Amino acid sequence: MVNSGLDGIVAAATRLSYVDGERGELLIAGYPVGELAERATFEETTWLLWNGDLPTAPQLESFRAALAGARALAPATVELLRECARAGLDPMDALRAAAGTISLSGDAPTAIAAGIPTIVAAYWRLQRGEQPLVPRSDLGHAANFLFLLRGETPDPEIERGLETYLNTVVDHGLSASTFTARVITSTGSDVVSAVVGALGALKGPLHGGAPGPALDMVFEIAESSRAEPILRQKIEAGEKLMGFGHRVYKVRDPRADVLAKAAERMYTRAGDMSLYTLARSVEATAIRLLDEYKPGRRLQTNVEFYTALLLHGLGLEASLFTPTFAISRVSGWIAHALEQRRANRIIRPQSEYTGPRDRRWVPVFERTALPV
Amino acid sequence: MVNSGLDGIVAAATRLSYVDGERGELLIAGYPVGELAERATFEETTWLLWNGDLPTAPQLESFRAALAGARALAPATVELLRECARAGLDPMDALRAAAGTISLSGDAPTAIAAGIPTIVAAYWRLQRGEQPLVPRSDLGHAANFLFLLRGETPDPEIERGLETYLNTVVDHGLSASTFTARVITSTGSDVVSAVVGALGALKGPLHGGAPGPALDMVFEIAESSRAEPILRQKIEAGEKLMGFGHRVYKVRDPRADVLAKAAERMYTRAGDMSLYTLARSVEATAIRLLDEYKPGRRLQTNVEFYTALLLHGLGLEASLFTPTFAISRVSGWIAHALEQRRANRIIRPQSEYTGPRDRRWVPVFERTALPV
Repeated sequence: MVNSGLDGIVAAATRLSYVDGERGELLIAGYPVGELAERATFEETTWLLWNGDLPTAPQLESFRAALAGARALAPATVELLRECARAGLDPMDALRAAAGTISLSGDAPTAIAAGIPTIVAAYWRLQRGEQPLVPRSDLGHAANFLFLLRGETPDPEIERGLETYLNTVVDHGLSASTFTARVITSTGSDVVSAVVGALGALKGPLHGGAPGPALDMVFEIAESSRAEPILRQKIEAGEKLMGFGHRVYKVRDPRADVLAKAAERMYTRAGDMSLYTLARSVEATAIRLLDEYKPGRRLQTNVEFYTALLLHGLGLEASLFTPTFAISRVSGWIAHALEQRRANRIIRPQSEYTGPRDRRWVPVFERTALPV
Repeated sequence: MVNSGLDGIVAAATRLSYVDGERGELLIAGYPVGELAERATFEETTWLLWNGDLPTAPQLESFRAALAGARALAPATVELLRECARAGLDPMDALRAAAGTISLSGDAPTAIAAGIPTIVAAYWRLQRGEQPLVPRSDLGHAANFLFLLRGETPDPEIERGLETYLNTVVDHGLSASTFTARVITSTGSDVVSAVVGALGALKGPLHGGAPGPALDMVFEIAESSRAEPILRQKIEAGEKLMGFGHRVYKVRDPRADVLAKAAERMYTRAGDMSLYTLARSVEATAIRLLDEYKPGRRLQTNVEFYTALLLHGLGLEASLFTPTFAISRVSGWIAHALEQRRANRIIRPQSEYTGPRDRRWVPVFERTALPV
């Protein structure tokens, strides 16, 4: 029996996150995601995942300092990003390539987690013909990333909004990228290798690589009254509605609520609720229609829909959505790599052979092409 | 039930290789490994895996030309390798980092397979303070790699020996690196991402990352008469004998025979059989003693033992063993990525949560460190 998606196979025991797809529950190291996401700094969440408990004040202080001290990139990394920008590389390809060079500064988890936002921001600026900025060690992890993008100290509410996002998507059971990190670690390899592999997996449009289209759909609809006809048309044309449906969740993704609340706060603060209101209306219509056209499939809003809405509300362009996801999830990947190391067994499944057997060698000049 | 090694789980259907661990059989796209390894050029084997059949003469000619035309590295890749050499990076770290930059030239399978040997040879030279050489398009894949190392056109028998090695280890079911490539591809990601992740997995000492020690043990024993006492001492001290035992094979790894035969030819040609004879004697003693100390475990010689003996016989240093493994296996990884794409389902297993539940937020100044 080939199980090509590994559906239902339990491939690891973990203390990092608990996903209950039937009840719509997500725990991050024991904390309900809503309890943690709105209160913790990203440094606290990262420490929690790496160490099992929230840090005490002195632990947090020294961890913040360690991360802040590891933000600068090696000159070779910046040079490579310049080349990637010249070649017009996709931001996730550039991020994966540049992350691979973190080995030049060792493979300490802090160096990796601190380096990723610097890479993302540097590449975003280089793509726009601007020079990368120097990281600021007086700012927290989230605020420094926003500073590296625009050269301005962010408003505390924007910082809080980003921090909430980073906490919300930091870990989520064995997603394909997290599982990649564990498979790589299971051979005894290093953490940079695990993270670079995971970045490659995250890039795929079936994983984290396509959060933009959910928002594009909202923009395309443009007015609440147009939601129903446009969505009906899409569903009847067999189009997949971006931002809906998830392998694991059969009820509403608990992360959607946290992100919706944070998004609401951002748009309220900005004084223009029209996009937020439109998005909520598109969501409600989409769920109603999905239930009508695909009864029993239980397709619900997933994390991508509100990721797009929140990150847009924070002023981030769509090309930054997946890289910003990576800035968060790298803490989870590293935590899984460290957990895998502590109780390791090399991950080596079986395959079923479906090809020919007992073929015999034929020299090249005696070979004939088979008819197509 | 947690199955942390995915033992016995069938995670893919494949036409690429068939491994029968009980009968000691390995088919490469339908050909018994011994039938193919000694006769095919590596270009033929790569084409076979990527297309399902051995190439006709015109197909082979154009494929050789395509690979030969894609051997040169982007200047940014060479610059990065120089930095890696300055930083003293492990060859597999340098290879992984440099392979990630192949995206600068796109993600065509030929660009990846052709670029890896150039990277390996360039880094080997840079580590020794020598300049990388310019690839030669008049040579085959294996011969060009040997040329790039030493600047000399290799003897045809040495070329044949390397080609036999490359063919022998090109694919082997769902090894951890191959599985990594498939997990990454399953998200819809690109082939460079899949290969870079696989390189990170191959690097681990439990996978391809430690073929040197098997030969070190033979050198340490130095004389056939010392094999028994030294091996007894190692086994009694609880040391793992390098080069013996495999997750899948319970009889002799069929690749060991092919490599042993090729090694014998190399040492015969060089006119000094002493190392080869010693290795055979160490092997026989090790298997006898493993059966005595660990009856029923059926520990057999694995591919690492003869890899080391053959590659040493070809004049390659131990630091080149794992990178040379990668030069071969990259063709298998790419074939698996292409196969995964053709019948894709995202690979997303489950995890079992073993951590705390229902934790409540405590502000940082109220937290106390738990007693250790």
